[in-house]
Amino acid sequence: FYGHLFQLKSESYALLCLTFSMVQLCGNSDYMTDMISSSVLFYGIYVLCLCLGLLCVVFVSYWNIEWRGGFAWDASFLQFNWHPVLMVTGLVVLYGNAAILYRIPFTWSQRKQCWKLVHAALLLSSLFLSILGLCAVFDFHTGYHIPNLYSLHSWVGICTVVLFTVQWVLGLVGFLSPCSPLGFRKLLKPVHAWMGMAIFILSLASCLSGINEKLLLALDGNSNSTAAYSSHPAEALFANFLGVLIVAFGLVVLGILSNQRWNRLEPGQESSRVSMVLSAVKS
Amino acid sequence: FYGHLFQLKSESYALLCLTFSMVQLCGNSDYMTDMISSSVLFYGIYVLCLCLGLLCVVFVSYWNIEWRGGFAWDASFLQFNWHPVLMVTGLVVLYGNAAILYRIPFTWSQRKQCWKLVHAALLLSSLFLSILGLCAVFDFHTGYHIPNLYSLHSWVGICTVVLFTVQWVLGLVGFLSPCSPLGFRKLLKPVHAWMGMAIFILSLASCLSGINEKLLLALDGNSNSTAAYSSHPAEALFANFLGVLIVAFGLVVLGILSNQRWNRLEPGQESSRVSMVLSAVKS
Repeated sequence: FYGHLFQLKSESYALLCLTFSMVQLCGNSDYMTDMISSSVLFYGIYVLCLCLGLLCVVFVSYWNIEWRGGFAWDASFLQFNWHPVLMVTGLVVLYGNAAILYRIPFTWSQRKQCWKLVHAALLLSSLFLSILGLCAVFDFHTGYHIPNLYSLHSWVGICTVVLFTVQWVLGLVGFLSPCSPLGFRKLLKPVHAWMGMAIFILSLASCLSGINEKLLLALDGNSNSTAAYSSHPAEALFANFLGVLIVAFGLVVLGILSNQRWNRLEPGQESSRVSMVLSAVKS
Repeated sequence: FYGHLFQLKSESYALLCLTFSMVQLCGNSDYMTDMISSSVLFYGIYVLCLCLGLLCVVFVSYWNIEWRGGFAWDASFLQFNWHPVLMVTGLVVLYGNAAILYRIPFTWSQRKQCWKLVHAALLLSSLFLSILGLCAVFDFHTGYHIPNLYSLHSWVGICTVVLFTVQWVLGLVGFLSPCSPLGFRKLLKPVHAWMGMAIFILSLASCLSGINEKLLLALDGNSNSTAAYSSHPAEALFANFLGVLIVAFGLVVLGILSNQRWNRLEPGQESSRVSMVLSAVKS
């Protein structure tokens, strides 16, 4: 009990010291004010990003439940419905969140190795959902004797998942394997970042062209006694709005990635940040 | 004549001095070697970018001439054919080239104001072609009593052109107007860069979903005695390949934009580069 009490006391003392230092820093330095306002701005945008991601998942699920008959895994139309849900959830929302993980200021003071594992795990889940999403559409095509990979949407989509697989394996070998040489990591890092952004942009383009394709084929105004896409039925407006949400989520993620101030600093840069903080304390 | 001779002689002398300095710098400094190899890499990628852009224009034109009947401006199907050609040429190829203009190392040593005018002029041509491309499709829809703006492709496309117009006007007011305050320019710059990238990504997504939509509607296997899209006819493969070219061009442009080493340095940064070059000469 006394051990716990002592731990609690020292934690409170550390927190008090931290708060005091923060107040001192905020009062004394423009740098700290700038750093804190940058973090506050980040968290504001991050909450927006989380909300948009959640809305994308809710909208794509509701669309398929309300207008497309729900889900099954029986090579029918109902199995196809898993395709948009799994791709939007895996390839856009989970992937986007994994991409911006290192930009969260909260993670900067912690060991990078730990967050590398979270990044890899999130991307593995994203890859798993994407491959499951592909299985859903291939099974459905086989069941209805529809040829595979004929549309531009399917070409862009399959390239995205193949590139994603290559990127994940290269990332595992290059950044998580203990025997990967430092020179290789240094060379791989900018390629990894650029490939990561490219895959995300391709996944956005795949999802938008996929929603458009599904609505053009399903709402043809002839079969299934549905209204034509061009007559603006409720389903079309709802699914188009899902597309707008995906665009908004994508642009917020790319905005976070392109802001250099939210980059996690590397060891050399960290020391300069520490010296800046220390000089701010001294002034 | 003597005046010309003198000018030629002094130009040759300047060139000789420059070559000598370059050789001296290359021999003496890792920084210069790094800078030169970075420039050589840039020009290699830039040539690839120009070739891909040219191929996109050739492919989209050939597709519409060979399989869609060519062009006219008479509210018929032939007027619609201007739509993909103008959008790919204006909103993707011209826009992408205008976006990477400041990254060309050749322009760094010259007055920025001059290149700002070239950047604005290229983007104005791009905007003009895009609006003309929208007129082509609206006229065709009116002629055939087809509703406007019902598909997700059209929603994303119209948002892209509206955002582009806002961006161009804001850029003109903020960066070319002599009475725009320095504080406003500083605030606008990161927003301008992010909006610029966002518009380019939206234009890529619009073009890909547009090609997909056109092929789904035109190659339905029923009307016009054409083969179905799903039976992989030559037109479908050709137009899908156009989509792949657009993706490749887009990724090369975004790769150039995301590489910090190809950023044109601002006045404060320029002085540090000059001092680095000078210290390299001295060593």
